[in-house]
Amino acid sequence: MSRVAFVNGEYLPFSQSKIHIEDRGYQFADGAYEVFAVIENKLADYDAHMSRLLRSLSELNMKIPYSRKSIFFHISNIVKQNLISNGLIYLQISRGVASRDFKFPANTKGSLVIIGKNIPIDQYTDTFHKGISVLTTRDLRWKRVDIKSLNLLAPVLAKQTAYENFCQESWLIDDDDFITEGSSSNAWIYSDGTLITRPVSNSILNGITRSTLIKGLKKRKIKYKETKFNLDDIKKSSEAFITSATQHVMPVVRVNGIKIGKGLPGPRALDFRAAYMESLKLTEL
Amino acid sequence: MSRVAFVNGEYLPFSQSKIHIEDRGYQFADGAYEVFAVIENKLADYDAHMSRLLRSLSELNMKIPYSRKSIFFHISNIVKQNLISNGLIYLQISRGVASRDFKFPANTKGSLVIIGKNIPIDQYTDTFHKGISVLTTRDLRWKRVDIKSLNLLAPVLAKQTAYENFCQESWLIDDDDFITEGSSSNAWIYSDGTLITRPVSNSILNGITRSTLIKGLKKRKIKYKETKFNLDDIKKSSEAFITSATQHVMPVVRVNGIKIGKGLPGPRALDFRAAYMESLKLTEL
Repeated sequence: MSRVAFVNGEYLPFSQSKIHIEDRGYQFADGAYEVFAVIENKLADYDAHMSRLLRSLSELNMKIPYSRKSIFFHISNIVKQNLISNGLIYLQISRGVASRDFKFPANTKGSLVIIGKNIPIDQYTDTFHKGISVLTTRDLRWKRVDIKSLNLLAPVLAKQTAYENFCQESWLIDDDDFITEGSSSNAWIYSDGTLITRPVSNSILNGITRSTLIKGLKKRKIKYKETKFNLDDIKKSSEAFITSATQHVMPVVRVNGIKIGKGLPGPRALDFRAAYMESLKLTEL
Repeated sequence: MSRVAFVNGEYLPFSQSKIHIEDRGYQFADGAYEVFAVIENKLADYDAHMSRLLRSLSELNMKIPYSRKSIFFHISNIVKQNLISNGLIYLQISRGVASRDFKFPANTKGSLVIIGKNIPIDQYTDTFHKGISVLTTRDLRWKRVDIKSLNLLAPVLAKQTAYENFCQESWLIDDDDFITEGSSSNAWIYSDGTLITRPVSNSILNGITRSTLIKGLKKRKIKYKETKFNLDDIKKSSEAFITSATQHVMPVVRVNGIKIGKGLPGPRALDFRAAYMESLKLTEL
């Protein structure tokens, strides 16, 4: 079966899924998006992702171009038509098509694109058992990264720099030399029996996986603390992690070439992943 | 005659000019652009704009997807086919289409889009005689605005805030309370017989109109200074301006509601515009 995407009300063959050249998402990065994990044919933390999407749109003064009910219906169709059992849904809403002008157009309907992607479950498990390497780079992003917007060129460059240095993720460093977060994930260290991540502000995205992991930590009575940390703190930590919708909880085994613990996923990795997995909400389609 | 755009090697009717939903320009703002003024069927400062485009691409580690010669040929066709005598050419290059992943794709050809737009010459002249009003807003942009990239959500929000406050442009204020530049223009004040604009750095775009105006000022032996200025300096200035490819030299008559000089274009406005106009290079098509 060939791949199908949802584009502004139509189900189209993937190769023919196109948007207009004057879509504001293309000319101005003027839009927001979400990535939903699909786990065993179900959506992970659907309501939390949708709430965050609505917040992003609201911060950008954008209206949702379809009802929540019909968006759920279309996501469900994309999962089913593309036979996705494990993978992701990528959903993007832009301010729509208008003659190029920085200010908002009047009365333009937003564009909605939904893409589904299968990711073999083995791929995650393999990476989990090896752990990933992280490179720190300067945080060059704009000052509203709390909005999950299309304004992503800075994280693109950060991730690329990481890859060119044989790392899988970049941790971004702010002007005061603290880690903000990963280029597409939240950052965590485990130090003296406490799991540490940066508190939510305009400097990081309020990660859904991050929030769900915190719920799980509370349930399991695992100590955690929301506080800033820097490279010195990383060097003293015994384990480290990233969280994201598609990476769930992923061990970090090296930062800037320096081993975290023994340079392998640590003894608590399975606990923390389980704390996340048992706290996420799965929505049937 | 109906409007035509150039999209990845094809001349298409404007309404059917589309790019793929996984174009990295749409998902990541991963691309660069230029706006060329068309003045009496000729391109303004074509070589300078092309050099800046090549610099932007180089800073993003992108290759130019067509030769300079064929890009000129296609721009020329778009001007002619759309019967543009005065107006602009918008040219955008993205890193191309690839399965969504922050890091750069291997061996993907960049996407090239060229759009032409007629702008009646009266429109500029009318605005020039009235001048524009400016609102200052916080500079929320990323730290590489020297690259003319698609990462434009911050200036979009700044321009919109200006419009909601009956202003036509926003001047952005950095962490030290100095003006960086306009949301889509460079900023100038005229104070004690000297025209002042911020020096080039990573905090502003190296404006082509800005450079050409400086050439013109030198020729006419008009005093100018490249230095930072703030709101206090603006209040003390007798005239103010923005420069951009399509606005050329445009008088600013109010900033945050405060009149500059008499709240009308000042006595030097025509001089400065002439200094620009006589120094720009026009390329025949």
